[in-house]
Amino acid sequence: VTEVVVTPTEQIQLFAAAGRELFESTLRQEGTEAAHLLDTVAAQIEGRAEELWPLAAEETGLAEGRLRGEIARTVGQMRGFAQAVRAGEGQDAIIDRADPDATPPRPDQRRANVPLGPVAVFAASNFPFAFGVAGGDTASAWAAGCPTVVKAHPGHPRLSRAIAATIEDGVAEAGADPAWFALVEGAGTETGSALAAAAPIAAVAFTGSLRGGTALARIGAERPEPIPVYAEMGSANPVFVTPAAALARGDEIAAGLAGAVTGHAGQLCTKPGVIVLRDDDAGRALVATLAEAIRATPAQRMLYPGLARSFAAGVAEAADDPRINRLADGPAATDEGEAQVAALLEIRADGLEHADPRLEEIFGPAAVIVWAADEEELTATAHDKVEGSLTGTVQAEAGDELGGRLLAALRPRVGRLIWNGFPTGVTVGHATVHGGPFPATTASMTTSVGITAMRRFLRPVGYQDVPDELLPPSLRDSNPLGLLRQVDGEWTRDPLVHA
Amino acid sequence: VTEVVVTPTEQIQLFAAAGRELFESTLRQEGTEAAHLLDTVAAQIEGRAEELWPLAAEETGLAEGRLRGEIARTVGQMRGFAQAVRAGEGQDAIIDRADPDATPPRPDQRRANVPLGPVAVFAASNFPFAFGVAGGDTASAWAAGCPTVVKAHPGHPRLSRAIAATIEDGVAEAGADPAWFALVEGAGTETGSALAAAAPIAAVAFTGSLRGGTALARIGAERPEPIPVYAEMGSANPVFVTPAAALARGDEIAAGLAGAVTGHAGQLCTKPGVIVLRDDDAGRALVATLAEAIRATPAQRMLYPGLARSFAAGVAEAADDPRINRLADGPAATDEGEAQVAALLEIRADGLEHADPRLEEIFGPAAVIVWAADEEELTATAHDKVEGSLTGTVQAEAGDELGGRLLAALRPRVGRLIWNGFPTGVTVGHATVHGGPFPATTASMTTSVGITAMRRFLRPVGYQDVPDELLPPSLRDSNPLGLLRQVDGEWTRDPLVHA
Repeated sequence: VTEVVVTPTEQIQLFAAAGRELFESTLRQEGTEAAHLLDTVAAQIEGRAEELWPLAAEETGLAEGRLRGEIARTVGQMRGFAQAVRAGEGQDAIIDRADPDATPPRPDQRRANVPLGPVAVFAASNFPFAFGVAGGDTASAWAAGCPTVVKAHPGHPRLSRAIAATIEDGVAEAGADPAWFALVEGAGTETGSALAAAAPIAAVAFTGSLRGGTALARIGAERPEPIPVYAEMGSANPVFVTPAAALARGDEIAAGLAGAVTGHAGQLCTKPGVIVLRDDDAGRALVATLAEAIRATPAQRMLYPGLARSFAAGVAEAADDPRINRLADGPAATDEGEAQVAALLEIRADGLEHADPRLEEIFGPAAVIVWAADEEELTATAHDKVEGSLTGTVQAEAGDELGGRLLAALRPRVGRLIWNGFPTGVTVGHATVHGGPFPATTASMTTSVGITAMRRFLRPVGYQDVPDELLPPSLRDSNPLGLLRQVDGEWTRDPLVHA
Repeated sequence: VTEVVVTPTEQIQLFAAAGRELFESTLRQEGTEAAHLLDTVAAQIEGRAEELWPLAAEETGLAEGRLRGEIARTVGQMRGFAQAVRAGEGQDAIIDRADPDATPPRPDQRRANVPLGPVAVFAASNFPFAFGVAGGDTASAWAAGCPTVVKAHPGHPRLSRAIAATIEDGVAEAGADPAWFALVEGAGTETGSALAAAAPIAAVAFTGSLRGGTALARIGAERPEPIPVYAEMGSANPVFVTPAAALARGDEIAAGLAGAVTGHAGQLCTKPGVIVLRDDDAGRALVATLAEAIRATPAQRMLYPGLARSFAAGVAEAADDPRINRLADGPAATDEGEAQVAALLEIRADGLEHADPRLEEIFGPAAVIVWAADEEELTATAHDKVEGSLTGTVQAEAGDELGGRLLAALRPRVGRLIWNGFPTGVTVGHATVHGGPFPATTASMTTSVGITAMRRFLRPVGYQDVPDELLPPSLRDSNPLGLLRQVDGEWTRDPLVHA
């Protein structure tokens, strides 16, 4: 195990201050180097894939195929952001022309987004590339024009340093200012607290535990100058199976659930942790098949020993709940420290409270079956018993009216609704929503994955009667960037013609 | 003086819970009643203008013309939001079509916004209509589809009740659920704290003091389920005058500043509180004219006695600063309790610290002149000495290169840049930005005025492979609302045609 280095607080302050200085100068220059930076760093990472994935495999225990796929996603999302920046996405250009005859007279008003300032990124343990040092938070902050100070996850320090070195080479190759990126390290909470509290930092992006995310959110709120903290945390990702779906596709659904619960040792933000069915023959048959698959799932290494310990403790605590029955376990592990046994628990819906803590995420290969007595109890569980979640899934049949009711009941509580699929697997695109009500995140108005993730780091600035040559290009009369703009309430790419 | 009623905490909880229940059912019905509600309430307020403005005049001391104008703005912004809702603004519909041949295969992903939940609105004292019980926060929350529980400002309790009764009549006339609106009252901090802490509340909108806004932001962050707090607070609204502008238009600028500093007894969020000039003949002549106007400004009644007291204390505290010279005062007031004397103070730029507290807002008819030795010190003051502000103004001449430098230096610190105007007067439109970095607000990513203010109360929900008939209308293949949507990255109003 490589020892984790602790970056001194003074150094963290210096990194943040350098980011602030760059931010102020870049903003004044209408900096457009972000797209070039993203493309150059993407190519650097792609070029070193053969060197990076084995390091990741060694430090995280994740498999080659998964890691190669993750590198492709990481590189792909950087290029997607670069393309979006070039297309002017995130500019949000709106123009209201002057009306001197109105009462009172209306000035010329325009608005477009500017970057928020230097962003502190907290890399996650479970996606060492896609949510890591060069992950979506770093890429979307850059896309918004924000320099980043990134805290490495202590679970994979050598990989973090190798990615940081790759980024630094990319920054140099792109001819960009070195202050676009800095890496800080630390194993306890001190480094992260110092980073989130550093005065030049304008926003925090975090992926990790509920405890870590809420602690950072408080630091953000209690600073002399409060800043937004975008934390993506725990999520139970409930899956509801209608009686008709259990009857028609029980085995298929059981197989899909088994893969989603145990794949990557259940170490995904969107692992289905709660599965709700009606207690009838088809439901029991589905769960029997799922339990069999769990019993056949070999013990898996988890990302780092601390995670394996907290998973085992979480399962044990749940099993201690008198309402819970421990239904199935995987075969005994050979390595107590890091290898983990999959687990399936069960509970009756009529014993559940509002937002019941027993349905909270257990991070790792475990799920809780919730038995509903009837369709009404299925819907009531969706409506009242589950907490805010990244995803909510409904397995239903065509014309299955209950499916629509379940979707509607879940919608106020989740970021993404999934129909006849499984919540694992996040597709990076324009329409991606990887967010949701607390405790899934601290900011349900945002997504941490997909092109619109960059909106987290932008804010609007209004320009009143500012001469054309002093406006940013996005707002000039001639529309030199060819943007789609809202002009007097109508959307157009046309240049402005003054009456 | 009418005694302020204190709404019991149990009643606040009941109002919030009713809002939550309505929100859940409305969301499930794809409620479109918000536009009708806004129009109906607007007509009700318009119809009772003759009854409402005299009540406002009595309780606030504001003049008839100003209050009539404010009622027109309040009604106008409700209608503007209704129109925006009907046009589908705020839906933010984005569609990424499925690609089964991609690696990994891409599902059909769509996203559109849903309301956040019941909103707690804190009405302001200084705009009893436009930022009051029926003000922009209430209207924009409704436009987003969110029920509101509104805390009246204790400065005008009878007007608040009359507006609430008008709204309730409008809600009934529109056939809407009564839970769209509830009024709560209280003079201390207890009512507001209980409202912001009430579990069913999903967001807070506040306009008022820095102390009040930051206290609410902490309550929002420290709840078991944290919620966003959109507080619009204090703002110094610095005005920079270039030497060329002082030379060319000194008297005109002085007259404009005098009106902006003393109009409405300086009780505007955008009152210019800091005026920065070069210490030269033209600058001194401008300030001499301004000082003369201040000395000629009769004492004015402030909104309520507590405000008059805190204004006097703020001026006295500033004048006690050894760096400050008290330059001019208005003629003595006749009514110590409520009438206030305008005040002009001066300080040298070279004595200022980073974000100097001496440049903080003094709410009322006062401003601080900052004398810069040269152009460099003018720019440095914009860059480093002023805090986050709702507005930043530059008075400059055509071809005056310093003007552009000042705009650029101010931009990271303000919500709205104004060229050769004055910051007072906020035009409600699509491009409006009434926000800015802390301490101007707690959420610089948002505006509290203008059509995009409704975005504060919306969040995205993703739909993965959801059948067309279960999608919200904004996302259906046929595009029944005729929205401009981003489909596979391109903007179009066309219906979706499956390959």
